[in-house]
Amino acid sequence: MSYSSTVQELIDQFGRLPGIGPKSAQRVAFYLLKAPTEDAVRLSRAIVDAKERVSFCERCFNLSEGGEECAICRDPRREERMVCVVEDAQDIVAVERTQEFRGRYHVLQGAFSPIDGVGVDQLRVKELMTRVGEEDIEEVIIATNPNLEGEATAALLAKYLKPMGVKVSRIASGLPVGGDLEYADELTLGRALEGRTTVGE
Amino acid sequence: MSYSSTVQELIDQFGRLPGIGPKSAQRVAFYLLKAPTEDAVRLSRAIVDAKERVSFCERCFNLSEGGEECAICRDPRREERMVCVVEDAQDIVAVERTQEFRGRYHVLQGAFSPIDGVGVDQLRVKELMTRVGEEDIEEVIIATNPNLEGEATAALLAKYLKPMGVKVSRIASGLPVGGDLEYADELTLGRALEGRTTVGE
Repeated sequence: MSYSSTVQELIDQFGRLPGIGPKSAQRVAFYLLKAPTEDAVRLSRAIVDAKERVSFCERCFNLSEGGEECAICRDPRREERMVCVVEDAQDIVAVERTQEFRGRYHVLQGAFSPIDGVGVDQLRVKELMTRVGEEDIEEVIIATNPNLEGEATAALLAKYLKPMGVKVSRIASGLPVGGDLEYADELTLGRALEGRTTVGE
Repeated sequence: MSYSSTVQELIDQFGRLPGIGPKSAQRVAFYLLKAPTEDAVRLSRAIVDAKERVSFCERCFNLSEGGEECAICRDPRREERMVCVVEDAQDIVAVERTQEFRGRYHVLQGAFSPIDGVGVDQLRVKELMTRVGEEDIEEVIIATNPNLEGEATAALLAKYLKPMGVKVSRIASGLPVGGDLEYADELTLGRALEGRTTVGE
């Protein structure tokens, strides 16, 4: 005996989600089968609602609800001169949480990774260049992840954007605040040394 | 900025599932927002379909589709004399895979764990006793998990069932096939010694 097709379909659909393996998918499916129907319906409805209501901002590819442009692009108080480039829409929430940035964003929807089939054409690079050409942008802050793909993406964007006469910067790598030199890996510590800033001036 | 209510609702609904933490829930939600709408709809529909079509068997509390009794209870080729008691419906699939058991099942829908609020009344123990009283059952094989809760459940069931004149057995604990004595924990090895069987007779 194996599962009925309905149960198997439920397990399979969960198994297709990222980070959910076959065992987790089975666990979740059985949880839902046992759960009150209204709980399951609420999850089902949340999925459909999100797909119906949420789209991507036409300008920056952030998530957008109730409009062609996202809430940040529509906000006249945000500085137009600065654009922070991130890999994914989630990263915007992380940057916003710092309350250090009052400009706008551009979501690449990924990072350069030819081995995974993600080239420049799969990213929103062309759209970024169009924005730099059309909007009043003075500085592009590249906030892709400090890993192999993110660094490659940053190098690539710098190559494309600098000739357009815009300032291109990269967020700093270094020791996390509250971190410990003793436990830092050599790459991070190397970056921290490289990116050192003058003090007491 | 945080997420819009629709996106937050999607994240929250996934976060309520077992084994999915806040970060995973966010990851899954963003995956679905980016995925083709038909993929998201398929997941949503699989949930609703499963809740509509799948119920619990009235006799053994296995999952049942298209009937009041499950496929195993309805199958006349299954032996009525033996009942294998498991904690969850998933466990039936595990036992069936062995092809060693041709009897029927009884799903307790949990294990005895007073600290989690699961007492005898929360389990399908009364229903099992009714079956032992009414059906032609000769042996009850207790296949609850070999952990604290499962063992407690087994002890409890044995106490209830033995006075009813039925044979009560417990699946063996011991070294897994292909395992290594050197790496076995002392409890498992202790059980393996305790449950030793005569060879060469």
